[in-house]
Amino acid sequence: MGEKAESLGAIGEGVRTVMTASIRAVVVTVSDACSRGERRDESGESLVQLLSEMGAEIVCATILSDDIEPLSETLRQFADRDEVNLIITTGGTGLAPRDNTPEATLKVIEREAPGLAEAMRMETLKHTPMAMISRGVCGICSGTLIVNLPGSPKAVRESFAIIKPVLPHAVALLAGQTRHTANEDSER
Amino acid sequence: MGEKAESLGAIGEGVRTVMTASIRAVVVTVSDACSRGERRDESGESLVQLLSEMGAEIVCATILSDDIEPLSETLRQFADRDEVNLIITTGGTGLAPRDNTPEATLKVIEREAPGLAEAMRMETLKHTPMAMISRGVCGICSGTLIVNLPGSPKAVRESFAIIKPVLPHAVALLAGQTRHTANEDSER
Amino acid sequence: MGEKAESLGAIGEGVRTVMTASIRAVVVTVSDACSRGERRDESGESLVQLLSEMGAEIVCATILSDDIEPLSETLRQFADRDEVNLIITTGGTGLAPRDNTPEATLKVIEREAPGLAEAMRMETLKHTPMAMISRGVCGICSGTLIVNLPGSPKAVRESFAIIKPVLPHAVALLAGQTRHTANEDSER
Repeated sequence: MGEKAESLGAIGEGVRTVMTASIRAVVVTVSDACSRGERRDESGESLVQLLSEMGAEIVCATILSDDIEPLSETLRQFADRDEVNLIITTGGTGLAPRDNTPEATLKVIEREAPGLAEAMRMETLKHTPMAMISRGVCGICSGTLIVNLPGSPKAVRESFAIIKPVLPHAVALLAGQTRHTANEDSER
Repeated sequence: MGEKAESLGAIGEGVRTVMTASIRAVVVTVSDACSRGERRDESGESLVQLLSEMGAEIVCATILSDDIEPLSETLRQFADRDEVNLIITTGGTGLAPRDNTPEATLKVIEREAPGLAEAMRMETLKHTPMAMISRGVCGICSGTLIVNLPGSPKAVRESFAIIKPVLPHAVALLAGQTRHTANEDSER
Repeated sequence: MGEKAESLGAIGEGVRTVMTASIRAVVVTVSDACSRGERRDESGESLVQLLSEMGAEIVCATILSDDIEPLSETLRQFADRDEVNLIITTGGTGLAPRDNTPEATLKVIEREAPGLAEAMRMETLKHTPMAMISRGVCGICSGTLIVNLPGSPKAVRESFAIIKPVLPHAVALLAGQTRHTANEDSER
């Protein structure tokens, strides 16, 4: 499908836009400091830019504290909205006592998609051993893919680059647009 | 143990056959289209061939729809049979609404073996980024190893090649045939 | 943080010692044979040495059988002790019927840290395919990091080398010593 996306892109910009425009994303920054206005939300801003650059529509970008309950409730409410098919969080995935994002995500997903989290960790591990202490999880809630990214702007950029190639196909599959064609790689 | 299997194989074909003949496998194809006869079950056929080639006995090969309940029940019944020590599924591991194989497997396994699923995803990730959206799980039910493979024939061949070297030792360990010898690598 | 630890180390041995001395570890060997005195606990001895070499304080080193209940209870009691911030187990992570360490660990951790286990498996997979049948889990119980390592001395050394660079930072994060500085890599 990586190949297919590229070949479609080669046909013309319009086709590529149609594929990627189908992403309707919410960005959730999870950070006590940012939620109190003590720190600029560079990671959330980066995510909005990265998603926009690939043609995704940004439905909402919001900042929450590290409290687990309002976070899981917010994830659930966004996932339940028909116009949202992707939620990307940044922050709260580490080992600190207030790092609750994975637990908030696990509370709301019905099906886990561990391969996305594994791939981000194993690929960014090439840059820093600290990648292995990221506890981010990925999964599906109400047909919406939820992806936890680490908190730092650098880790956000590196992690997003790993999952970016599969996002258009992922949201298409979630919507029931499966393909059983010659393109074997898309059928996982 | 990879080394040991090879050195035993070098002693003679007979020895190798004894080791690998201990695999008694069930192949379960999970696919709405195949279960309705609308598509040929190439992936299941591939798995039967790949297992046979390594000396495994095929106890049964069957096709089921993507319905979660009959699938988990089938997995449990096969796992409970004394003559079965390996169940390999193909299909239903993706992000589509009907992809329920990991959830059906999680319902019946008592102990998870995440390393097999991780290894298949991380190794096949070298061929295609789509590997990361496979949600397959692996684990143990009633002393039987259950392994979820993706649905496409190509992904089945690539994924099976990753786990093939450990299958003979895995079923031996499950049967309580542990070794505490100089061969350290086998004691994980 | 890998870089930071090194640059601090360059300032002087004293600084490095201060950082690493904050690890207060318990080593738990899980082995029926060792608990009965039928086999020497080489893996536990290796772990004590490896931890001591990096400046960690060894609070206790103990040997338990593979029984799940006393094992999980022991893990919980050590985790609850204020002076312990790291528990490393060795053994019981395989596929044999008595391999219960991951399940005992899952019973007591409140938050999983899957990246540590994934990294150990994927990196040691370069040495042996048998790495993929290790079922070890890692997670947090009462602010203490619990890490499951395989049972063989060789696998212990290889696996410990993977996680060693992040241990000082991990226990600092668990203690609430978070840093939001220019050192982006530490904020996962």
